Parts: sequence; C-alpha cells; structure tokens
Amino acid sequence: MADQKYIIGVDGGGTKCRARLYCTVQGFLGTGLAGPANPARDFDSAMQSVIDACQAAIQNANLPQLKLDQVHVGMGLAGVNLASVKQKVLAWQHPFKSRFVTTDLHIACIGANDNHEGAVIIVGTGSCGLVVKDNEFSQLGGHGFPVGDYGGGAWLGFEAIRYALRAMDNLAPSSSMITRILSYLNCSNANDVAEIMLNARPADFARLAPLVFDAAEDGDEAARSIIQTGAEQISELARQLLAKHPSRLSMIGGVSERIKSWLADDVAKHIQTAVYQPDYGAVFFTLNQFKN
Amino acid sequence: MADQKYIIGVDGGGTKCRARLYCTVQGFLGTGLAGPANPARDFDSAMQSVIDACQAAIQNANLPQLKLDQVHVGMGLAGVNLASVKQKVLAWQHPFKSRFVTTDLHIACIGANDNHEGAVIIVGTGSCGLVVKDNEFSQLGGHGFPVGDYGGGAWLGFEAIRYALRAMDNLAPSSSMITRILSYLNCSNANDVAEIMLNARPADFARLAPLVFDAAEDGDEAARSIIQTGAEQISELARQLLAKHPSRLSMIGGVSERIKSWLADDVAKHIQTAVYQPDYGAVFFTLNQFKN
Repeated sequence: MADQKYIIGVDGGGTKCRARLYCTVQGFLGTGLAGPANPARDFDSAMQSVIDACQAAIQNANLPQLKLDQVHVGMGLAGVNLASVKQKVLAWQHPFKSRFVTTDLHIACIGANDNHEGAVIIVGTGSCGLVVKDNEFSQLGGHGFPVGDYGGGAWLGFEAIRYALRAMDNLAPSSSMITRILSYLNCSNANDVAEIMLNARPADFARLAPLVFDAAEDGDEAARSIIQTGAEQISELARQLLAKHPSRLSMIGGVSERIKSWLADDVAKHIQTAVYQPDYGAVFFTLNQFKN
Repeated sequence: MADQKYIIGVDGGGTKCRARLYCTVQGFLGTGLAGPANPARDFDSAMQSVIDACQAAIQNANLPQLKLDQVHVGMGLAGVNLASVKQKVLAWQHPFKSRFVTTDLHIACIGANDNHEGAVIIVGTGSCGLVVKDNEFSQLGGHGFPVGDYGGGAWLGFEAIRYALRAMDNLAPSSSMITRILSYLNCSNANDVAEIMLNARPADFARLAPLVFDAAEDGDEAARSIIQTGAEQISELARQLLAKHPSRLSMIGGVSERIKSWLADDVAKHIQTAVYQPDYGAVFFTLNQFKN
C-alpha cells in the first residue's frame, strides 16, 4: 500500500467550490461543497472555500483520520487564466501534501472528454471555451464579467436589467420581461431596480437568466433579442473551437441546457454530452501529474 | 450688512467635486476642486470631497477668516436620486451653517437654464436628463454605470472594451479601435486588457471614450456602431424631454461636444448652449432656498 495516494480534485467557480476525494486504491470516496472560489475577485475567501470544500469531502467520506497534509489537491479555479492571479495562488501557503493549479476551464475540458484531448464550452455564470489538441491549448472568452463572458448567465441577466431600465424610462419598447424582473426583485420602478443592482455580483445577475428565457420562450421580443445576441456569440465561440478539429466538443454549465436550442444548427449538431463533470476532471488532472 | 450671506454651491460627480463661493454682497469670490463625490459609491470619501472642495474655494477667495460654520452650502450630488442615498446625506453631521441637498442633474438644469425652468441632458461619465416644468420634475436615465448611463463616456469605453475582447478572440471582426486601446492601456493581448479592466471604475472606462470617437471619425465600423447606438439612446432621451415642452433644452458634460454631431437631426436642432455650468446652478439653488 506504499503507493496509495489520496487526491482531491477541486472545481472552484464564481458561485461555489466543489471537491471530490479519490483514493488510488479505493476509488472515489466523497464530495464536499463550499462558497465561491474565484481568486481574482476575493483571494482570501477563495482559498478558504478550497480548504472548506476539501474538509467537507473528507468528512463526507467518513475518514476523520485523514488530514489535509496527507492529500494531493488539484485545483481548477476561475480567474487563474490571469497571470498575476495564478502567481498569487501558486505563492499561497497551502496546507496540503502537494497542490497543482490550473483553470476551471481546463478541468472541465478534461472531465467532459473523459481525460482525453477535446474541446469544451462552459455557459454558466460566465462563458468561455477551450480546445486542447496535440498538447496545445487555445482558450477563448472567459475574460470576466461584465467586460467579457458574453452569453453567460450573468451577461443575460445584465442585458435584461439594462433593457428594463431603458424601457421603464420609455427609452425602449416595453417588454413582459420587465414585469417578471420587477416581481422577482420585489420592486416597482427603475430607481428601485438600479438601487438593488448597484452592488450586484455576477451570480446576482445570473439568477435573472431563467426569467429572460421564460420571457423569450413566451415570445417577448426584447428577451428574444438578448438571448439571440448571446447565443450567436456562443455559436461563434463553438465555430472557433471546431476550426481546430477537436476530437469532440461538449457544452456544460448552468445555462447550457436552455441556450442549446438557440444555437446555430451548424454548431448544435457537433455538441456532445459531457462524459464527466469538472470535479472529476480535477481528479484526473491531479492523477496525470504523477504519470509524467 | 446683517443680511450678508456666504454661500457655496457644490457640484459633486463621479470623477470630481467643484465648489463655487458666492457672497450676497460681493458676488462670486472663488472656486475649489476636490476628488469624486458620488455618495452612492463611497459615502465617506464623497462627503470628504465636499468639505475639501469648499475649503479650497474659501482659500481660493483668500478669506482665511471665513469658517465652514459660517457658510450655507447647497450640494448637487450624483447618486442622491436614490432615496436611501439621499437619506444618508441628509443624516450626515455636516460642518456648515446650513446645507441643502439635491441631485447633480437638478443643479445642472438650474445653471444651464439661467435659474429658470427648462431641460438639460448631461452626457459626461454617465448620461441622464431632466425637465422641470410648472414645478414638476421628470428625470430620465442616470441609473448608474454599468446597468444604466447609456451613451455616456463610461458606457462608450465599456462597449469598446467588450468589443475589443471579442475581436481579439476572433469572435467579432477586427477594428482599428483595438490598436488604439492596446496602445492606450500599454498591453498586447485580451488577457492583459481583461486584467487591467478587472477593477476599473466608471471614470477609467470614460477615459477611453475619446479613442472610440477618434476611431469612429476615421471610419472604423465597430466604433461607429458603438457611438451610433449610444447616440440613438441620447436622441431618444432628448425626444422624451422635448415631449414635455420645456422652455429650452441644453446638453452639457465632457462627452456632449463630441456626441452632438451623432444625434438625430430632429433633436440636435433643439439643443442650445448652457447659460451657466452646474456649480453656478448649485449657488442659484442655494439662494432660491432663502427666497421661499
């Protein structure tokens, strides 16, 4: 049993952090969940979320004797595509036996394609794409909300709020989306909406995305236009990934199911179901470090 | 001289705060400038900016014996259109003889229309409009960046960054605007742009607006489209104000000169030059409080 290793794969995103505990002898043992883990937004609480999720996974596996300093942790984190953020994570005094760091997009790609090369699109709170082919990485999008992440849940909710504020000032045609937004936010006018959304975070905007789909599916023009604009951008992202001829392409994330029917036909037919979720991908990523 | 009053009019916006000292006997005496004064964004530093600007105006007037508790101050502040923010400003323990509070938009309207009723559009870092007619106020826009303030300088810079990030990922046609942005930000790729703009404030985005105009005036399609979209919204805002039949309509703010030629003809012909700037309007506003 000298070779037995405990590994935790961590999938850290802007709204939550999921950890999955794996043992090289016993297999998958447990999972844990914690708060947001985007070190570009809030470094200290992101690192605390990673620790919390790992401890929750150990607890879930009912292994109280297993300590963090006996575990190899591979983290796929939002925000570490930014060089300065990755440096900061690498410099962090971690409590683990060893730690490996990559992007949330990379572990998603590994998981979605069953630990083989391929491509993935994430459409969750944000949006981004990655293709890995012949050991080369091409990442698209994912530049962070609100300047990037076109077509993601936060972007959809943000555009809906922007439209609603204009329409409530009679600067754009009215829309049934507005009634839905006012009801959801429990307020009655543009000033109240602006005040509630003043310090809104990406996840707060993303929570409005289902309302935008509901309105669009009921035929509301403003909502349809927002979703079409976002979907066109996701289709274009898929086309750029497919141009690299990946072995397969998956789409994952909280918005992927609902946006799929809005994508262009030439793109939609190439999108396959993800084989594994990103937290499994993080475990595979960590295991791969010991193979080389 | 028993009736002699010292009055300071304060124009507090998201990028700076300007104060103008007036004496009911001697007339205008001096001006002072200080940092941002948007109490919706940072209450404490906004109130400090108001005090700093007032002290700078007294110093500029060379009146060292004049203390803040001898001065009546009328403040037109960004953000106080939000009820909770106005409450907070009114509850503030101010150091003045008396203080009066209204929006930056209201003092702009008073100044632009020479202390008469009328309408004003501000297109600076943000965008908004106000018409005052028969003592009734109708405010449009100004819901705060990034959800509101369509067509303002921050909005223009923000849309330019969003476009540039997509174009650099080949998700939108290239544009000469990108070269200008990269050169201005002194960086070379999308990740760097995203990283620099991660915590950008409205004023940071607004500083890019001149580049967008430069590119548009050189015929760049992406820049033209952004400015046209913003200008259409400002035109629509003007139409809504004109529908209330104000005695006159002025447009002021740092972006107003350059966006004017992009406005619809039916609107542009109604826009007159502002008579006074907002800091004068703040003095008139304060004087008006003593007339009633």
